[in-house]
Amino acid sequence: MAFNEVFQYSTVSALMDGVASDGTLLKHILAHGDHGIGTFLNMEGEMIVLDGHVFQVKGDGSVIYADPEETVVPFATVTRFRPALTTRRTMTGKWGLKELLTDLFPKAKNHFLVVRVDGLFKTITLRTVYGQCRPREGLVDVCTRRTTETLKQVKGTIVGFRCPEFANGLNIAGDHFHFITEDRQRGGHVLSFDTEHDVEIAAAEMVKYHLELPADDDEFNEAGLKQQPEPSLFAK
Amino acid sequence: MAFNEVFQYSTVSALMDGVASDGTLLKHILAHGDHGIGTFLNMEGEMIVLDGHVFQVKGDGSVIYADPEETVVPFATVTRFRPALTTRRTMTGKWGLKELLTDLFPKAKNHFLVVRVDGLFKTITLRTVYGQCRPREGLVDVCTRRTTETLKQVKGTIVGFRCPEFANGLNIAGDHFHFITEDRQRGGHVLSFDTEHDVEIAAAEMVKYHLELPADDDEFNEAGLKQQPEPSLFAK
Repeated sequence: MAFNEVFQYSTVSALMDGVASDGTLLKHILAHGDHGIGTFLNMEGEMIVLDGHVFQVKGDGSVIYADPEETVVPFATVTRFRPALTTRRTMTGKWGLKELLTDLFPKAKNHFLVVRVDGLFKTITLRTVYGQCRPREGLVDVCTRRTTETLKQVKGTIVGFRCPEFANGLNIAGDHFHFITEDRQRGGHVLSFDTEHDVEIAAAEMVKYHLELPADDDEFNEAGLKQQPEPSLFAK
Repeated sequence: MAFNEVFQYSTVSALMDGVASDGTLLKHILAHGDHGIGTFLNMEGEMIVLDGHVFQVKGDGSVIYADPEETVVPFATVTRFRPALTTRRTMTGKWGLKELLTDLFPKAKNHFLVVRVDGLFKTITLRTVYGQCRPREGLVDVCTRRTTETLKQVKGTIVGFRCPEFANGLNIAGDHFHFITEDRQRGGHVLSFDTEHDVEIAAAEMVKYHLELPADDDEFNEAGLKQQPEPSLFAK
């Protein structure tokens, strides 16, 4: 796959319906990209793909390295990231990053964006999840047992995507970011953050989107796959 | 691209918002598939891609050959079709074909299907459209000036796709078929049909979906791109 094209395995609507007990090998995901986000079997935690390495943030916020040969992945979004644009800024929160990206890519209103932010964060609030209590438990219920923590004066990297409105259901419309600390000890889904010094933002616009659906997967086949995920799940 | 993978240029939600005054060259579409459906600049008529040849059904139901080197296409869905399954049946209408496909592919409830039906049709009712009266006129308004005709005892080919529910907005959820007569003189979007002799059905399941969005296209960038097309537009 060429640089800056989206590769996605399965759909967010499948996670909403609790389809997470099977998937594809992580090495298959990595064959399509070196940068991205996702989840793990039974939605156990948050995935960060950074420079081709994959980290699993467990339910308690701790991080382990995921073995590409052995890890089975029910959902992920990745790209072979090559920044089209880099800049240094101070930002307040996801709203600040949202405005910055919109300004930087005025012709990408209906395109995908890939984003990476490196630097020292004054604060960053992260969410992670313990995973399903039973097969087919949906993402909304999984997220009721979420853990949040706020890290202060921490160095690390935000990895994520912006998806256009019409891709909702397949993925999450809008911005969706995960974070991992520089020492690779803590991480999670980004709820909010603040910076007081410049951080480095790298991003690119993407117009090609490649979706691979689970095959020979009874759970996926039987799922209702609603189109509209709960927006509040990802917005806050 | 491998056999039986979906390639789609632009989105149905873009057509709903009237984004149809620019596009990609037809030869670029044909590089990704030899079988499919779509529309033309300013939504002028219905596209049938059959065995790598492209036909344009004009607003009056007549058919012309579309030159891959010169024709600009705002929206199309194609695949490199290789039937996974063929059968001969008598069917009543789109409902009959729908039931047949569901029976033939029990594990494809949330996958894409590609379909081709060849044979003698007792009746077939077709719709076509004249196209936009002005730039940005949406598909719903374009379809108010539709032409329908019913052909009787006519030989020809149905070409089309089934898309899963979660792909609505990107494409049309459900079945979507176009038709062209064997003599390539008439055609259109299939509203209904009936057979009294066996026709030949060829189909395949598809789990890979490749979307390419218009780039450097102000109309596309400025469009609102609603997720939900009017279902009745395509169901009847």
